[in-house]
Amino acid sequence: MIRVAVMGAAGYLGGELLRLLLGHPGVEIGQALSTRFPGRRIDTVHPNLRAQTDLAFRAPDDLADCDVLFTATPHRTTMTLLPRVRERAGTVIDLSGDFRLPDPEVYERYYGVPHAAPELLGSFVPGVPELFRDELATADLISVPGCMATAAILALRPLAGLVAPDVQIDARTGSSGSGALAGDGNLHAERSGAMRVFAPVRHRHEAEVSRLTGLRARMTATGVEAVRGVQVVCHATGDADEKAVRRAYREHYADEPFVRIVAHRRGTHRLPDPKLLSGSNYCDVGFAADGGRITAIAALDNLVKGGAGAAVQCLNVRTGQPEPLGLGFPGLHPI
Amino acid sequence: MIRVAVMGAAGYLGGELLRLLLGHPGVEIGQALSTRFPGRRIDTVHPNLRAQTDLAFRAPDDLADCDVLFTATPHRTTMTLLPRVRERAGTVIDLSGDFRLPDPEVYERYYGVPHAAPELLGSFVPGVPELFRDELATADLISVPGCMATAAILALRPLAGLVAPDVQIDARTGSSGSGALAGDGNLHAERSGAMRVFAPVRHRHEAEVSRLTGLRARMTATGVEAVRGVQVVCHATGDADEKAVRRAYREHYADEPFVRIVAHRRGTHRLPDPKLLSGSNYCDVGFAADGGRITAIAALDNLVKGGAGAAVQCLNVRTGQPEPLGLGFPGLHPI
Amino acid sequence: MIRVAVMGAAGYLGGELLRLLLGHPGVEIGQALSTRFPGRRIDTVHPNLRAQTDLAFRAPDDLADCDVLFTATPHRTTMTLLPRVRERAGTVIDLSGDFRLPDPEVYERYYGVPHAAPELLGSFVPGVPELFRDELATADLISVPGCMATAAILALRPLAGLVAPDVQIDARTGSSGSGALAGDGNLHAERSGAMRVFAPVRHRHEAEVSRLTGLRARMTATGVEAVRGVQVVCHATGDADEKAVRRAYREHYADEPFVRIVAHRRGTHRLPDPKLLSGSNYCDVGFAADGGRITAIAALDNLVKGGAGAAVQCLNVRTGQPEPLGLGFPGLHPI
Amino acid sequence: MIRVAVMGAAGYLGGELLRLLLGHPGVEIGQALSTRFPGRRIDTVHPNLRAQTDLAFRAPDDLADCDVLFTATPHRTTMTLLPRVRERAGTVIDLSGDFRLPDPEVYERYYGVPHAAPELLGSFVPGVPELFRDELATADLISVPGCMATAAILALRPLAGLVAPDVQIDARTGSSGSGALAGDGNLHAERSGAMRVFAPVRHRHEAEVSRLTGLRARMTATGVEAVRGVQVVCHATGDADEKAVRRAYREHYADEPFVRIVAHRRGTHRLPDPKLLSGSNYCDVGFAADGGRITAIAALDNLVKGGAGAAVQCLNVRTGQPEPLGLGFPGLHPI
Repeated sequence: MIRVAVMGAAGYLGGELLRLLLGHPGVEIGQALSTRFPGRRIDTVHPNLRAQTDLAFRAPDDLADCDVLFTATPHRTTMTLLPRVRERAGTVIDLSGDFRLPDPEVYERYYGVPHAAPELLGSFVPGVPELFRDELATADLISVPGCMATAAILALRPLAGLVAPDVQIDARTGSSGSGALAGDGNLHAERSGAMRVFAPVRHRHEAEVSRLTGLRARMTATGVEAVRGVQVVCHATGDADEKAVRRAYREHYADEPFVRIVAHRRGTHRLPDPKLLSGSNYCDVGFAADGGRITAIAALDNLVKGGAGAAVQCLNVRTGQPEPLGLGFPGLHPI
Repeated sequence: MIRVAVMGAAGYLGGELLRLLLGHPGVEIGQALSTRFPGRRIDTVHPNLRAQTDLAFRAPDDLADCDVLFTATPHRTTMTLLPRVRERAGTVIDLSGDFRLPDPEVYERYYGVPHAAPELLGSFVPGVPELFRDELATADLISVPGCMATAAILALRPLAGLVAPDVQIDARTGSSGSGALAGDGNLHAERSGAMRVFAPVRHRHEAEVSRLTGLRARMTATGVEAVRGVQVVCHATGDADEKAVRRAYREHYADEPFVRIVAHRRGTHRLPDPKLLSGSNYCDVGFAADGGRITAIAALDNLVKGGAGAAVQCLNVRTGQPEPLGLGFPGLHPI
Repeated sequence: MIRVAVMGAAGYLGGELLRLLLGHPGVEIGQALSTRFPGRRIDTVHPNLRAQTDLAFRAPDDLADCDVLFTATPHRTTMTLLPRVRERAGTVIDLSGDFRLPDPEVYERYYGVPHAAPELLGSFVPGVPELFRDELATADLISVPGCMATAAILALRPLAGLVAPDVQIDARTGSSGSGALAGDGNLHAERSGAMRVFAPVRHRHEAEVSRLTGLRARMTATGVEAVRGVQVVCHATGDADEKAVRRAYREHYADEPFVRIVAHRRGTHRLPDPKLLSGSNYCDVGFAADGGRITAIAALDNLVKGGAGAAVQCLNVRTGQPEPLGLGFPGLHPI
Repeated sequence: MIRVAVMGAAGYLGGELLRLLLGHPGVEIGQALSTRFPGRRIDTVHPNLRAQTDLAFRAPDDLADCDVLFTATPHRTTMTLLPRVRERAGTVIDLSGDFRLPDPEVYERYYGVPHAAPELLGSFVPGVPELFRDELATADLISVPGCMATAAILALRPLAGLVAPDVQIDARTGSSGSGALAGDGNLHAERSGAMRVFAPVRHRHEAEVSRLTGLRARMTATGVEAVRGVQVVCHATGDADEKAVRRAYREHYADEPFVRIVAHRRGTHRLPDPKLLSGSNYCDVGFAADGGRITAIAALDNLVKGGAGAAVQCLNVRTGQPEPLGLGFPGLHPI
């Protein structure tokens, strides 16, 4: 039994980690750590866990040794925290933005502050089993990409040789991506029904996409009406026709347990839509081609395949368990 | 030209007052007062007013004389504020909860604190033109009822002689009713898609309904997915059949400019639904009767007929202008 | 391995049965029957089942023998169909409205047509394990109550001795309850954001509630903005205080695997809200008492505990498997 | 008083025309024509018009002479209808797709059928007052562009000289754009919360945008959760910095009554969001520039500035009335 701990356990990604880990037959959640709610039962903060557990939060300083530590703490916080807690865990799987970019200068350009632990940056393996399965099997430091980055990486990776390097990514996201802390922009009356372009240029996830696909990615991001869910629509140029594009996707993903190709000619659900993926670890990918233009689409649940689910998938790879273990929920329809 | 001022102008009711008053041909908005944003243009807080006005907020202490002052400030605040500002205005129209209940003991029971200006309580006329049109024509102090109270009062008033006095009101409301300040419960990811019973018993608006209908009203309230909109479903007992009930509603509301009877046998929109009323000053009322049970239903936009629109309607009555002036927007379909 | 068949497998309840049964370790889905889509893969209609199965629909006439047959066909259809298919299955679990009311006269009053198989009406055991666990263990004909009826029965049953017999139920429901067939009232632009009182008096589920609780239930029903989810708010009178009420609920539900008591003094999620239950088999129940009035609240997912999940729970009871088998998904937060 | 008629008056665009025209002081709606509902009151189909009018639909064949005829009939229908009705009206303002593209070959490529009235194609003036005000003042045949096309044209036109000709448009739309007829894809349970890429490549509005901006536009379109509202995010390349871009927008739109520049550095509502524009005739435009990439954004209500409102604005220009007449509703906040 793998002993795991979750830091930042009161946030939305933390809660999703707890949900997945409580249903995982190969792990034991020893510790759920939270700065805000030490001593409180976790189901008072995550009401979907009622009757699932009696676990309570403890203070972060009380972190005891464990096999795997998940850090679901905010970026900027995580880079100062991580060097202090690293010794407590055999493997650290980080879900924050702080260890995704190996170059401290790129970090500073996109995050606006100097990196506090640049010496660690090069040691992290990206938490994308589809690309780094072998490295993850032995990695002690794993950094799960941003939710929109994961979607875009999986959408674009099969196109790497088929399209020109300049790619425009149009990302849409639900409100859970901005976290569990209330603010003016997150107020229901303001956020409800919105189409809010919050990053008209240079969303920070574009740096991760560029790095892991070899393309020059530009990303625009919009908040749309949803709680969970991310969708990316990637605009690329290239002469490949739809048949060739389909072949490329099949080659990449035929054996992947959590990537499905969804690209039908007709029907209501012919291309990836995140609403079908709430709670599931799938990333659905699809595409269309027309006259030199290729559109690639991906959808996922930002808290699962875009965060906690990917982290659990990495844990499975790292600890030699079956990769889909604990990640079997297929999603709902209708929803 | 009537010179009006709005205190609490940065809130949602304040913003709705500004929208209605800017479109009103008989008034001039001299002052929009806000504690939080003095000096800022009002369209930075109420973006729907872009290109409608160059007005800026000023600090509440700078209130100058005016003909009509609207107080859209929070309850508890208003009862200490009002005695200080009363001299500045010929007529005060209050939208808070502080002057709705004439009895200070009832106030304390429902609001949990003693009233700070009990000597004023008896002087307010309820802002319900359908019941108090004559009194409102000369009133200097007007108190607009709560949004759910207005809906319930208009739904139940025609039934007063037809039903037993014990009435159960089931109220549903959108999120704008809880105001423009962010909090844990208002976070989009929490509030979205909710059916949240926030007052399982004894919602405070029941006291107003009992007072103005002569019934013994009990009110339960639930937040449902909507930004604007209130609906009440009132459960009463009585032997009247639907024909007699319809007659009672017609007698009460045939000549009312802002109450429509919506009670059809079939069709998608056969009973009152607040989604059709966003932005409009209508209160739609409907009913059904079956075997000794009478159900009365009302719907309105909580920020318009449930607040700012009712207040403007009162202003029109008080100042001798046509009652519908500035309140002509009929609502949208589809929406 | 129990061999099961699902008739009406292309509908929303049918799809939910397929989802649950595919994840159930003790059953084998041999047959998914559909009048509309024979020959098509089931994942073309239920896209959440992509990569879960290669099963295709077959025509209802091709029904072969099985251990358990679920009928998720429309009411009126089911009562003519059932006598013809009964021989094919050891046990039939019906999810339609046709076999819920033992008295054909009551059926006709609520459904508007004479019953086509009155001789079978008395043989069905209600699919409510919380009330009929022993009978279900040997039943060959099981009828799952309506979604709103199940919620109201579980909310009210503990109050049976504590309240006066007249009870008013206010039910709210999402759009999936009206099925997968498009109609004017279901069009997104019409149904979105609605508060639509579609049964102002005498919703047909009230007959089931009266029967199984011994109370005289009246039910009003409203469609609110949600796809999944039912909530009932039940208004009763009685002198019991909250402590006595809580005790009654605890006595009834302390050992129930799928009923949780949710009745907290404060917090965003202090009372049952169906949004937390999407995909889960829980029915959450809560309450409040004040001055002679008792409010009881229940929430569930209409397609799970209000239909397919309850049916699977009954299958588990009937076939001697652990009652929670295949029903472990706890729901999501946030959502 | 201008005598107007609306053909296709039972659809969503038809209903919006009726709402706007009923509130317009310079016109008289003589006729509302509908194939589906002749004889029915228009407020039974458009419930927001209750108490606004007693008008009833009449059959299209009963069309009598009028000054201005609005055709809000489906594409393909309109091109066969229009030659027959043209004589009845001094001016025809068409809201369908049939007369937007002057070249019948381009029409056939995008609409999949040969044009039925190619001889008329060259006679229509595009219903975009911002570009064709002078021509519209005397036009007898006016064709209002598609909702997404209008948004993209207004977003991109100021950039014409500043960016490279290849432009990628990412359009998002609410459900009302697909009309008032129920279908599988429009069912609430399917459409709710969707992010549905329904045109991954070559949305037909791209042809209109290319024609009226001189750019080579590609358009992808996605349905998102909303009833009303269109947003376009246009991705272009060019060296202009934000200051130069702002200057271009100001030059184009400083005097336009219905185009607002919304491009702030911060704030919740810093860029165009259609939720603020429901019911209003504004098109909000915004932009950002970064390292050779320019993002242009526009938002509007597809039924108003994207259809009926633009048509009324054209009527005002054509008949010499003040351009904003009848179009004063500013939109709501919050909503």
